[in-house]
Amino acid sequence: MDSPHSMAPGHIVAIGGAEDRTSDLEILRRVFALAPEGRDEVAVIATASGIPDEVLADYEGAFSRLGASRVHSLSIRDRRQAAEADTLRRIEQSGVIFFTGGDQLRLTNVLGGSPVLNTIRQRLQEGAVVAGTSAGAAAMPGTMIYNGAAADALRKGAVNMTFGLGFVDGLVIDSHFLERGRFTRLMEVGASNPEYLGVGLGEDAAVIIHPNRVLEAIGTGHVILVDSRDLASSNIAELSMGEAVAIEHLILHALVSGHGFDIEERRYLAPDTLAAATRGESA
Amino acid sequence: MDSPHSMAPGHIVAIGGAEDRTSDLEILRRVFALAPEGRDEVAVIATASGIPDEVLADYEGAFSRLGASRVHSLSIRDRRQAAEADTLRRIEQSGVIFFTGGDQLRLTNVLGGSPVLNTIRQRLQEGAVVAGTSAGAAAMPGTMIYNGAAADALRKGAVNMTFGLGFVDGLVIDSHFLERGRFTRLMEVGASNPEYLGVGLGEDAAVIIHPNRVLEAIGTGHVILVDSRDLASSNIAELSMGEAVAIEHLILHALVSGHGFDIEERRYLAPDTLAAATRGESA
Repeated sequence: MDSPHSMAPGHIVAIGGAEDRTSDLEILRRVFALAPEGRDEVAVIATASGIPDEVLADYEGAFSRLGASRVHSLSIRDRRQAAEADTLRRIEQSGVIFFTGGDQLRLTNVLGGSPVLNTIRQRLQEGAVVAGTSAGAAAMPGTMIYNGAAADALRKGAVNMTFGLGFVDGLVIDSHFLERGRFTRLMEVGASNPEYLGVGLGEDAAVIIHPNRVLEAIGTGHVILVDSRDLASSNIAELSMGEAVAIEHLILHALVSGHGFDIEERRYLAPDTLAAATRGESA
Repeated sequence: MDSPHSMAPGHIVAIGGAEDRTSDLEILRRVFALAPEGRDEVAVIATASGIPDEVLADYEGAFSRLGASRVHSLSIRDRRQAAEADTLRRIEQSGVIFFTGGDQLRLTNVLGGSPVLNTIRQRLQEGAVVAGTSAGAAAMPGTMIYNGAAADALRKGAVNMTFGLGFVDGLVIDSHFLERGRFTRLMEVGASNPEYLGVGLGEDAAVIIHPNRVLEAIGTGHVILVDSRDLASSNIAELSMGEAVAIEHLILHALVSGHGFDIEERRYLAPDTLAAATRGESA
């Protein structure tokens, strides 16, 4: 069927945080391998981070080891820097644009509507890979979670959301998902609007979002999918703020490396079917 | 349809821990109200607890306030005490038998096969209510979880299980479920054998297991049900110990007070249908 969502030619990689940056580099290796032929420069954007120099050094080391000809370390601390011509030029040269972790609200607050963000969207249309970890993953969809109760987020209003960076539609992404017990956050989002697939990324786990809107799990951790499309009932609209939300019927999947999911068809893809679904288009 | 599981005439109440013991006593009030007519003595068993005197004093105060004519505080620290005639007599007199929290393995290790446990089973057959919180809830089924990885328990072998106290069949119970992020524990159990319903109890939340095998959620927290009966596939049998488990298709429900679930029919019960399902048999 025709997808209602626009498909960029480039790949998106959303990482759950704490990915290996010093040893096998399993996830970052896949990110780098997805760059278009001959585009081996990498731009790393540390806007989300409170310690940009430290994380930029980490990623510069990692992508250099993987064979990047240049790694552009971009702090981009404010909206003025998000419009600098030199920064735009570095992004235009890059085959990989990578967002570090930190605070996703800082990311959207600084980059929303900026020339840097427009340039990244353009690069994605041209086939570049856009990747991000932790906050950098959470910010990728059109709507993002930026805060939520840790223990029981299944209370009306317990999850705070706003517009994200808009690289991908039709889903919501949460990171550090298993490690921080965030199942109830995606359950609340699912009850509030069952149309959107919940993607919960564990640490050292990631999804590649292929241009044909197939998800592929990579890394050593888990990718949990919370599919609310067949939600049978919920009391959420009747509640006052803070009251406990009831939910009848969500579907859960747990993906590990090599397993996938077709977003449009809501279909789980075991390794053999995943290979068929991504054949000929992956790097 | 006829149930494959035996049904005791008495009610079971499984509480997720940290229930209110000093204010409204909402959950404990329901427990006490389920006692058979005219049986207003309560036996509190603190075998699981490392601080039995402290918790016994708490529950003695709570059940006295609720109108218990006597509260029998039973530490039962070892197997010799689990056979004492005076203890058996106190349990035989009680309309409510209540298990405190602590360590469920201490509970089964001390009580398994004991005269005290046989007497409690007999009381349940005679219509007494058997209730427990935290470890006291987890130990109730025929098979119980006694340990499991906190963060990502969706690894082969990450959940440790053994025989429980055997008060109820067909399900597995986990407590402090939302507060300690235990979704992956019930997911792993579901992958290992999809026949058994996973019941995840939040704090200050509980389920009444009615004699007709209908679950009723009570309290201010959530009861999460992990229903694996329609599991489509999992790699668990092929993995080595410690490897990440993939799961295709589990069903989740989030119950709040007044909502229920029919265990045999695997049917969610909104408040109106729950009332019909429990009419005439509840205290």
